[in-house]
Amino acid sequence: MTEPQRRPVPRDRENDYTAEQAARRREFVADVTGASLHHVGSYTVEESSLRGNVENVIGAAQVPIGLAGPLRVNGEHANGDFYVPLATTEGTLVASYNRGMRLLTAAGGVRATVVEDRMQRAPVFVLDDALSARDLAGWIAAHTGEITAVAQATTSVGRLVEIERYHVGPMLYLRFDYTTGDAAGQNMVGKATWAACEWIQQNHPDHPNYVLSGAIDTDKKHSQVNMLRTRGKRVVAEATLPEGLLREHMGVTPQQLFRARQYSQTGGFMAGSANNGAHAANGLAALFIATGQDVANVAESHAGIVYSQVTEAGDYYWSITLPALIVATVGGGTGLATQRECLQMLGCHGPGRAKAFAEICAGVVLAGEVSLSSAVLAGDWVSSHERLGRNR
Amino acid sequence: MTEPQRRPVPRDRENDYTAEQAARRREFVADVTGASLHHVGSYTVEESSLRGNVENVIGAAQVPIGLAGPLRVNGEHANGDFYVPLATTEGTLVASYNRGMRLLTAAGGVRATVVEDRMQRAPVFVLDDALSARDLAGWIAAHTGEITAVAQATTSVGRLVEIERYHVGPMLYLRFDYTTGDAAGQNMVGKATWAACEWIQQNHPDHPNYVLSGAIDTDKKHSQVNMLRTRGKRVVAEATLPEGLLREHMGVTPQQLFRARQYSQTGGFMAGSANNGAHAANGLAALFIATGQDVANVAESHAGIVYSQVTEAGDYYWSITLPALIVATVGGGTGLATQRECLQMLGCHGPGRAKAFAEICAGVVLAGEVSLSSAVLAGDWVSSHERLGRNR
Amino acid sequence: MTEPQRRPVPRDRENDYTAEQAARRREFVADVTGASLHHVGSYTVEESSLRGNVENVIGAAQVPIGLAGPLRVNGEHANGDFYVPLATTEGTLVASYNRGMRLLTAAGGVRATVVEDRMQRAPVFVLDDALSARDLAGWIAAHTGEITAVAQATTSVGRLVEIERYHVGPMLYLRFDYTTGDAAGQNMVGKATWAACEWIQQNHPDHPNYVLSGAIDTDKKHSQVNMLRTRGKRVVAEATLPEGLLREHMGVTPQQLFRARQYSQTGGFMAGSANNGAHAANGLAALFIATGQDVANVAESHAGIVYSQVTEAGDYYWSITLPALIVATVGGGTGLATQRECLQMLGCHGPGRAKAFAEICAGVVLAGEVSLSSAVLAGDWVSSHERLGRNR
Amino acid sequence: MTEPQRRPVPRDRENDYTAEQAARRREFVADVTGASLHHVGSYTVEESSLRGNVENVIGAAQVPIGLAGPLRVNGEHANGDFYVPLATTEGTLVASYNRGMRLLTAAGGVRATVVEDRMQRAPVFVLDDALSARDLAGWIAAHTGEITAVAQATTSVGRLVEIERYHVGPMLYLRFDYTTGDAAGQNMVGKATWAACEWIQQNHPDHPNYVLSGAIDTDKKHSQVNMLRTRGKRVVAEATLPEGLLREHMGVTPQQLFRARQYSQTGGFMAGSANNGAHAANGLAALFIATGQDVANVAESHAGIVYSQVTEAGDYYWSITLPALIVATVGGGTGLATQRECLQMLGCHGPGRAKAFAEICAGVVLAGEVSLSSAVLAGDWVSSHERLGRNR
Repeated sequence: MTEPQRRPVPRDRENDYTAEQAARRREFVADVTGASLHHVGSYTVEESSLRGNVENVIGAAQVPIGLAGPLRVNGEHANGDFYVPLATTEGTLVASYNRGMRLLTAAGGVRATVVEDRMQRAPVFVLDDALSARDLAGWIAAHTGEITAVAQATTSVGRLVEIERYHVGPMLYLRFDYTTGDAAGQNMVGKATWAACEWIQQNHPDHPNYVLSGAIDTDKKHSQVNMLRTRGKRVVAEATLPEGLLREHMGVTPQQLFRARQYSQTGGFMAGSANNGAHAANGLAALFIATGQDVANVAESHAGIVYSQVTEAGDYYWSITLPALIVATVGGGTGLATQRECLQMLGCHGPGRAKAFAEICAGVVLAGEVSLSSAVLAGDWVSSHERLGRNR
Repeated sequence: MTEPQRRPVPRDRENDYTAEQAARRREFVADVTGASLHHVGSYTVEESSLRGNVENVIGAAQVPIGLAGPLRVNGEHANGDFYVPLATTEGTLVASYNRGMRLLTAAGGVRATVVEDRMQRAPVFVLDDALSARDLAGWIAAHTGEITAVAQATTSVGRLVEIERYHVGPMLYLRFDYTTGDAAGQNMVGKATWAACEWIQQNHPDHPNYVLSGAIDTDKKHSQVNMLRTRGKRVVAEATLPEGLLREHMGVTPQQLFRARQYSQTGGFMAGSANNGAHAANGLAALFIATGQDVANVAESHAGIVYSQVTEAGDYYWSITLPALIVATVGGGTGLATQRECLQMLGCHGPGRAKAFAEICAGVVLAGEVSLSSAVLAGDWVSSHERLGRNR
Repeated sequence: MTEPQRRPVPRDRENDYTAEQAARRREFVADVTGASLHHVGSYTVEESSLRGNVENVIGAAQVPIGLAGPLRVNGEHANGDFYVPLATTEGTLVASYNRGMRLLTAAGGVRATVVEDRMQRAPVFVLDDALSARDLAGWIAAHTGEITAVAQATTSVGRLVEIERYHVGPMLYLRFDYTTGDAAGQNMVGKATWAACEWIQQNHPDHPNYVLSGAIDTDKKHSQVNMLRTRGKRVVAEATLPEGLLREHMGVTPQQLFRARQYSQTGGFMAGSANNGAHAANGLAALFIATGQDVANVAESHAGIVYSQVTEAGDYYWSITLPALIVATVGGGTGLATQRECLQMLGCHGPGRAKAFAEICAGVVLAGEVSLSSAVLAGDWVSSHERLGRNR
Repeated sequence: MTEPQRRPVPRDRENDYTAEQAARRREFVADVTGASLHHVGSYTVEESSLRGNVENVIGAAQVPIGLAGPLRVNGEHANGDFYVPLATTEGTLVASYNRGMRLLTAAGGVRATVVEDRMQRAPVFVLDDALSARDLAGWIAAHTGEITAVAQATTSVGRLVEIERYHVGPMLYLRFDYTTGDAAGQNMVGKATWAACEWIQQNHPDHPNYVLSGAIDTDKKHSQVNMLRTRGKRVVAEATLPEGLLREHMGVTPQQLFRARQYSQTGGFMAGSANNGAHAANGLAALFIATGQDVANVAESHAGIVYSQVTEAGDYYWSITLPALIVATVGGGTGLATQRECLQMLGCHGPGRAKAFAEICAGVVLAGEVSLSSAVLAGDWVSSHERLGRNR
């Protein structure tokens, strides 16, 4: 059988980030697939601004943004009432988060705290046997100063704060932990760790082999090591919801919520779930798209641990801890046209704002928990989708 | 302390899906936050088409789309060379997937197979004790026919294929499994299961209490139950890559890949990772944004199991199984302006195309695995980010 | 370097199960290691009774047995007050379980219910590709009757109740579920499944290759699939403890227990623990040694899910579900001298008693939960070990 | 309904560790249950030696011990040919381990290395909010010296090496890591950590509340945190098995083993298994019973990570890493009659031998892996149980 001649995607190696090139590729698509890309070709972002963000540009997806809020956040870095842009195509999502925000705000707001901050690259060194691997771990511990200097020489921002070690067979898995300022930092720590590994390989007498990722950084993948040891920001959002407000706004009582919490906590444990809460991924995906975050990080960032109690006064203390929230206010997609505007709405564009943004993200997630968990109990869940969703 | 007067987001209860309303809200944002939303307000999607997809519309995020391909897919439903739209802001992503597609296509293409298809809603019934819960399980088994009829009466598409049971204490967790045609189906199965539960509650002599989700559907959350029992489509992408092609295109050999596979497999196992492969979330998030999927489903869909072997001929057999790929070609955001165009590019818009689209998704994921795994080994990983990424 | 001549363990191929052979091996040990085995050689079990239980016998370990109880069990199969033999060398274990039993009994006893019963062998068939694997799954479903007949022909007791399927790449993992009467059944299901696989291999047109265990039976290993899908007996023990009794016997209140439950539930979830309770393994190991169970099954059997609530009356409902309790009252070590006596103490020796024994096991575990959890809260934990343990 | 008068177990509060008391309790059992305890009452261990090991003694379980070996261990602490006592009632277990030992020894022995050594107690402090919890973590880090001094003042052996922190909501979970010499150390670290927590509570200005275990020590429970961060000894056993030996002794080739390894690795990952190897729990349970270890620790100790490769020479490198091997050569049951003799056989009784014993344990486990994994492939598995097991 003769294979059809396959046509490569047109590119201009000199300057590919132009309106002409994008148009040329849309025509190519129309030609080979028959699909018109009229809307994809309707955008206002400057092609030249996309270098470093995407290759072979053909246009832009338009993802509708709904506005929720205000959400009162009482954080260390974010403090005030926020109006939150959520880019989504799922009916009821904005309405549901909005409802949760209203309640949280009425209750005085959501406290949000970044409790850990560390991004990893995790190489693996492969030795002849376990004893050599253990010796290498000792050697690295003895040379931490030099390794840190080498790693940090690659970056003006990243700071190496710990090198964790995990032994398996003849292998030494390392987890290099960095702070990365206001960037998400995966590339930054990749480069720094690569330099560190090269230095180790060259300076250790056995010149041991390594691979830059031994998979325990679990980049773009949920993992238990993230749950335990943090990736990106570990952020807690918490609020105490007065019984009266819960009844009035949500039609549920703290006791009902707490009772149902035991069911979902138990179910989540049995299921081996990444999150014993309701739906952190919904709010995070919508926020991430709107604000130019790396949306693939929803895989890691959606992990969560809900902890709640009924207070002695009969109110409901509700918290969610996001152990692996990966966000940025510089770099990546944060500077693009609509993305920058959305970050600006939140006062979170640019340097010095990553922790504030992390606090807002956690607050938004808690709003979603409050709303959905209450709706499921109050019986509004199916009916609200009937009313607001596409299956109406 | 007196609280500032908080201003609610403007809405028109009569007709909120108009250009005027969107503009009014953008002005509101400008007023309360100082942020201009010029680009957010520049879109071509019709406001009226957004009803059921989003509330409180203010405009649209523009997410740049790059074109990768062609990718040869040899599926049961998708068969041919596909040009793939990837909406992302992460530099190198499109280039990297493109590289993997080139190799897969040169190797004759990627086989893709949907091996399971089932969407769940998982209520929990709470009884007085374990014995009553076990009895209820028996009663439900004896009334499966009636329950199925009741559930299916709520939907013209969904079909109930199994009711799984999981006992804990006095609780009976059920997992209702449905096929949902070309829709993702979360709302469809929610409505059907709600009807089923109401019927059970009314007809069982004890009128047992239930909550519509006991959290083992793990909606919007990765879980081990998904890994095992499937959520959405369980799809396998597989290819055998000739040694010569691997050397030439990627600069690696099957033996090197297989050796490194042992490292990452071991690391992924130790880390409790949702995926023992490289970065399924990257390709899926980009495809999902472009094609109007529910992007929060990246949380579940990014799970994966890589399995590979060196063949007797010395080539490399590589497969990835996505146990919880949740996709649709009707409903949700699939009908919106740019999203529809992107599905049309793939020949996957509308009824009868969900399995084809699932096959393409899996093929794209495998392309990303091939490219990144090879790059890490060949030492191109850091350098390509230097060249193409924002940290250049 | 010349290797020393290594001396093999003496054996008599004709009749190795004699006092003489055991003595001969003890002398051999004394000769090559210098260790006297006086106590090891002091036992009353008949050597001839050990055939099928152990090879190269040198004697017996003496594991001290303490007596706890009475424990009131209100089960379907076990009903009454039980005195429980616990073989252990850990100080405070018997005292602690005894304390819990006293409380449970004072509260009217522990309800115990076997909610599932199934033992597995899980072969994997390896095909050319995923499509063939899916087809094989269909073929097996279509031939379930014949496969069941073949499997059951190997056993007078085992009954095949389900063949579960799990797809990965070109592989079809199957999980054959059986009831196995009063035996633990691992060997029984191994033999039956082997026959089934041979039949499939011979009768399927492609004669597919298989391995008798693809590791998802997780024999002798804890696993999430056990948590979800049961291995051996799934048993629930539950009790409602009046507030007054808890205060008086344990010095704690339901509210304190419930509050602390949230801490350990949360900790267990974050840690990826096999059991969100306290220490099921302690009671089970001691019972298993005493009663001739396969003690390695503690690995699987110690998994557990605690679920509790404060009742409206202010009492404490406490349950633990053991999803993978593997026990027997026939076969294995149940017929040996001391082991049989201990089963007889419980009225659980011989046919028809496995479920009763499972109920007692679960009741014992709950007693241990009640005692230790209360002690930790009441501050008795360290002090009781000071008083009763070896570190006094 | 009137409850029957329940009879308490007879005890002598003055001196309960006598032959008379044990006999009195056996008579009591005979009286209330009808069971004769002739064999249970036949033992040679001194009752007076049991104080601190068990309460309410009635006698001893006789668990048959089989002898396996010699096993050549090339460790740092254990070096030589060992004859291994395995206490079990499972037919084929001793024969199977023996077979594996023969192969390992013929291949030059098994290398064994203790790569980490740390035992934990993990309290949880509960604060008002996440910010206070984070502040407490900082305060503890600033007072590590004092806390270490307080903890270590409780023990002449234990050394506090790290205090790990894990934040959730308003809670600060800590994991105190100690070396504990030749003891298993759970009680030692409980006492030391209790002292540390009391000191923190008294000296921190807020006098924060704590519970001595927040469940992330996962005592007596398998967990992912153990897999990652070690509990007890982390030990690697490894060997390179020449192709010729494998063929001759086991009837399999390195290529066959490696191919099947991919199946079980994949299956173990999908199943969420505690061990991607074959059956570590079997050998460990048998060794633990024989040598007076706390058998409940099989729950944690059976976790394992197998890593293997085919070498360039075509031989098979095989390793297993036990991340949570909890063993002792002093304390607990190690000094009792038969248990001491068995430790003496291994040259592992008393101070200074715990790491040697850990190395032997790991070597034994690898022997079992080699034997069973080969048997499954060579088709001997079912047939050997037919020949040697009770179902013959």
